[in-house]
Amino acid sequence: MNQAMTTIEGWYCLHDFRTMDWAKWKLATEAEREQALHEFKGLLHKWEAIEEERNGSHTVYTIAGNKADLMSMILRPTMKDLIEAKTAFNKTALADFTKPAYSYVSVIEKSSYSKMVENPFEDPTMIAKLYPAIPKTEYICFYPMSKLRGEKTNWFMLPTEERKKLMFEHIDTGKPYSEQVKRIVTGSVGFDDYEWGVSLFCDDALQFKKLIYETRFDEVSAVYGIFGSFFIGNLLTLDGVNQYFCL
Amino acid sequence: MNQAMTTIEGWYCLHDFRTMDWAKWKLATEAEREQALHEFKGLLHKWEAIEEERNGSHTVYTIAGNKADLMSMILRPTMKDLIEAKTAFNKTALADFTKPAYSYVSVIEKSSYSKMVENPFEDPTMIAKLYPAIPKTEYICFYPMSKLRGEKTNWFMLPTEERKKLMFEHIDTGKPYSEQVKRIVTGSVGFDDYEWGVSLFCDDALQFKKLIYETRFDEVSAVYGIFGSFFIGNLLTLDGVNQYFCL
Amino acid sequence: MNQAMTTIEGWYCLHDFRTMDWAKWKLATEAEREQALHEFKGLLHKWEAIEEERNGSHTVYTIAGNKADLMSMILRPTMKDLIEAKTAFNKTALADFTKPAYSYVSVIEKSSYSKMVENPFEDPTMIAKLYPAIPKTEYICFYPMSKLRGEKTNWFMLPTEERKKLMFEHIDTGKPYSEQVKRIVTGSVGFDDYEWGVSLFCDDALQFKKLIYETRFDEVSAVYGIFGSFFIGNLLTLDGVNQYFCL
Amino acid sequence: MNQAMTTIEGWYCLHDFRTMDWAKWKLATEAEREQALHEFKGLLHKWEAIEEERNGSHTVYTIAGNKADLMSMILRPTMKDLIEAKTAFNKTALADFTKPAYSYVSVIEKSSYSKMVENPFEDPTMIAKLYPAIPKTEYICFYPMSKLRGEKTNWFMLPTEERKKLMFEHIDTGKPYSEQVKRIVTGSVGFDDYEWGVSLFCDDALQFKKLIYETRFDEVSAVYGIFGSFFIGNLLTLDGVNQYFCL
Amino acid sequence: MNQAMTTIEGWYCLHDFRTMDWAKWKLATEAEREQALHEFKGLLHKWEAIEEERNGSHTVYTIAGNKADLMSMILRPTMKDLIEAKTAFNKTALADFTKPAYSYVSVIEKSSYSKMVENPFEDPTMIAKLYPAIPKTEYICFYPMSKLRGEKTNWFMLPTEERKKLMFEHIDTGKPYSEQVKRIVTGSVGFDDYEWGVSLFCDDALQFKKLIYETRFDEVSAVYGIFGSFFIGNLLTLDGVNQYFCL
Repeated sequence: MNQAMTTIEGWYCLHDFRTMDWAKWKLATEAEREQALHEFKGLLHKWEAIEEERNGSHTVYTIAGNKADLMSMILRPTMKDLIEAKTAFNKTALADFTKPAYSYVSVIEKSSYSKMVENPFEDPTMIAKLYPAIPKTEYICFYPMSKLRGEKTNWFMLPTEERKKLMFEHIDTGKPYSEQVKRIVTGSVGFDDYEWGVSLFCDDALQFKKLIYETRFDEVSAVYGIFGSFFIGNLLTLDGVNQYFCL
Repeated sequence: MNQAMTTIEGWYCLHDFRTMDWAKWKLATEAEREQALHEFKGLLHKWEAIEEERNGSHTVYTIAGNKADLMSMILRPTMKDLIEAKTAFNKTALADFTKPAYSYVSVIEKSSYSKMVENPFEDPTMIAKLYPAIPKTEYICFYPMSKLRGEKTNWFMLPTEERKKLMFEHIDTGKPYSEQVKRIVTGSVGFDDYEWGVSLFCDDALQFKKLIYETRFDEVSAVYGIFGSFFIGNLLTLDGVNQYFCL
Repeated sequence: MNQAMTTIEGWYCLHDFRTMDWAKWKLATEAEREQALHEFKGLLHKWEAIEEERNGSHTVYTIAGNKADLMSMILRPTMKDLIEAKTAFNKTALADFTKPAYSYVSVIEKSSYSKMVENPFEDPTMIAKLYPAIPKTEYICFYPMSKLRGEKTNWFMLPTEERKKLMFEHIDTGKPYSEQVKRIVTGSVGFDDYEWGVSLFCDDALQFKKLIYETRFDEVSAVYGIFGSFFIGNLLTLDGVNQYFCL
Repeated sequence: MNQAMTTIEGWYCLHDFRTMDWAKWKLATEAEREQALHEFKGLLHKWEAIEEERNGSHTVYTIAGNKADLMSMILRPTMKDLIEAKTAFNKTALADFTKPAYSYVSVIEKSSYSKMVENPFEDPTMIAKLYPAIPKTEYICFYPMSKLRGEKTNWFMLPTEERKKLMFEHIDTGKPYSEQVKRIVTGSVGFDDYEWGVSLFCDDALQFKKLIYETRFDEVSAVYGIFGSFFIGNLLTLDGVNQYFCL
Repeated sequence: MNQAMTTIEGWYCLHDFRTMDWAKWKLATEAEREQALHEFKGLLHKWEAIEEERNGSHTVYTIAGNKADLMSMILRPTMKDLIEAKTAFNKTALADFTKPAYSYVSVIEKSSYSKMVENPFEDPTMIAKLYPAIPKTEYICFYPMSKLRGEKTNWFMLPTEERKKLMFEHIDTGKPYSEQVKRIVTGSVGFDDYEWGVSLFCDDALQFKKLIYETRFDEVSAVYGIFGSFFIGNLLTLDGVNQYFCL
């Protein structure tokens, strides 16, 4: 019989995409720009303290193409914390030089397709997965996705065993990449417009393409995968901030 | 034979989503900001008087992600009252620091899938459902939805008994959540672009995901549910207004 | 055999939706606002003269939700007249405080699904339908629609007799509402993006929902109806203009 | 066997849709407006010289509804000429009072569904069709379209003979209109987002609706036609320019 | 059995589309415009040095229609280089007179549908294809595309041999054009919203239409091709920059 998988959730997750208003940035005085970067780096330092206290995690990226210029991925214990993180950035001076381009709201999710330990919230491996530090790799690949609910082909009407079988095949295809490409899967049913968010991390952007292309031939992707927009970002470290914004 | 359910309607309902123009807000003088908040809180006080007189109800939320920053949910006796509430907000100074992001127009609806009492408008339980005070929980989850009218699969061509059976299964799946997650279902056929609006209320945002994910495997959702955008909001009380807008 | 119905057309029709720029309106001086309203009311007076001479008809509405704030429905003898009416409004000062939000271009259409008289253009009842005064009810409901041309199910490939049968069933469902809800159906094949526009008029907004919900179970709607956006408006009379725009 | 029709191409074609910024136009001084119109009419005079030398053709229209306010249809010998015509307009002062609203890039196309002469480029009738003067009728109707490539129904997989049969039926339906409604069909595979553009010309706008409605019941339209947006325009002659822009 | 083709990747690729803000350009002083063009040409000179050192390649085009005015196609060794190229342009003064209109992120891809040499990265022909100089033809045609994953018809579920057969037929149809029309195919699975980007190069824009129209009847295009927007550009050489931007 078809039924929902058991899921366990960890931190809430925001992907916050912004477009830079470079023309406005150039119109600012050098003092205004310096002050804005100083304040922004102060916010990042606060967020690093949160990460060090294991109360969340975050990364910032520059984005390829024109869909956005910057993206922050932010993990926090509550949905309210996520809204406050967005609002905190919006109150900075730097935010006035950006415009929202896209966003995704979700929560870290481990489903019972993965092997479940008995007391997951006491298991260190599971805890590390539910409350992770975002990998600080060179690149991120983010995309939201849903499963097809078509008139003939419907993921949610498949028997549980069939869904499990297809998921395991899919996991197998990805295995050769598991060392090189790290992954954070977040659930967004009820939170945003697709059912899941996928964030991949790697030092070599090409591996994203190779992994996703290869798995596209898996039945679970080929037949049931509905994909939203794909975004590619390059890690912007605190040290890189000055250079990125320098005119 | 297939036919429309009997429906009973209560108050009209507006979900009014806005994006904050934080850059403009920062450009305002502190006096202008104070004056704008004073006026806004005055409007909320007027609306609270309406709620106390049981002539309507309202709540305000801060919204997760970049789809919007603020959302008001407003219940009123007539459609004209809804338009006047929108216009009243638009005439405030605070409105000039926001831009419309989305909206949904509907009316509270009880359909005969639920057990119908004989004289609903004299039944206190039914009256409480048709003219409710919006629950003041920590979080709201809102989404509009329609039922599929596909080439093979068509909700509106199903026999009434089949529709009832599928709805009752769906209601059963939701039962374990009924204590924790409150719900206001509004009808919007003829008023907006989907057929229904669903507003869920809970102090724990995770329960929205768990409830909606679980019910997605119900045939009525899996096969017939067409979902619009999902929005998650955090209650903004009168007391919280100053802090939210404080720079 | 499938073939086109005979249609008879009357006045051309524009639904012109606008969003108010309230922030700009507040920035104007009181003299500028007064002057703008004076000029706008002068335009409405000109249009009323046209209506009195039976050379057209028009109504103005405030719109629920954020899709638009204002809508004018304008009937005129030629397409050129419709363009001139839009341009005349655009040249007013008030127009500078609005932005186009949507529009629909169509022509009043009587099809032979309705009983056709022999010389329709000499028949007073038919003439009244082709060149009507728009009902001055409290509310309007407007939506554009097309008929499905799917891979299996195709309205335009149905035999004429089948189409007639389905249309008559549909007309029957609407009959109990015909006293309370007035209707102007306009054709827009070749003029705009859907095939028809439907404008409903009633003093009780709820009747729109009840009528459209009930007819959604008619085969012609359930299976063949493709619906665009729905808009709900409240009549803005000349007398109401000052109050609506008053700050 | 299914295969491509032979096509012969003439002039390249741009439909350039613009929205007027009337508020900005009113803010200009009368001298600026006069200068802008003088320059614009100078450009139109240059384009008329091109038309007289049979190196191209053009027309300008005011557009019904809010999709656009103005549209130029421009025919030129090369794609580069089309880009230069757009750029020339963009460099005028009048262009600063407009915003691009839509455009369509295509090339005049005669396909072998029409009877082909042996040496088409030496045949005066064919030459007149490939390098036409755009008819100066009161109205234009423009829409882009493609042919369905569905999972069951696919125009491009039909045998050539079947496609020819369906096209000839379609041409037959249009015949009663051929005197009154002139037509320029342009191909846009590889140039824009639909496969063809259709421009119809008539002094009576109603004939567009009647022709397109009637042909919608042809199998080639009913089953295989995918239609983009429809635009209706009223010819703006050089003499009409002053009146249209006059405040 | 169905499985992924082996692919070999070369340089990363950005198509960066921009709309000119001609009104703002006219408001600049002649000195500002000269300075902006001087700086822009300096950037192009730097990029030419990169091309001469075989560390990348680039071209700039003026675009037909209103989808965009300018497009740069840029090839670079890493994804980070692509982001830096975009950012470098954004930091120029000329960029302030443009707005992003669209973009596409991909990587040059040779798949094993083409004959594979044994050590491709040592084969001069293959190297020339993976790290090419973009052809400096008069015109470019760019479009993104995916392969259908429908409920009945699914490219990714076809056996490998069937996919190969269909691709070879498709390659055969294009052969008569291979001299005149050059092609760079890029893969974008995981990088952007379609699966591939196609860039065609020719001195005669008409050949794009003829090639794509003819191949649309190939089963692989007719049945499995999902096409995004089509863009046509005219090469803007360094020498042509002054003329294009001249007022």
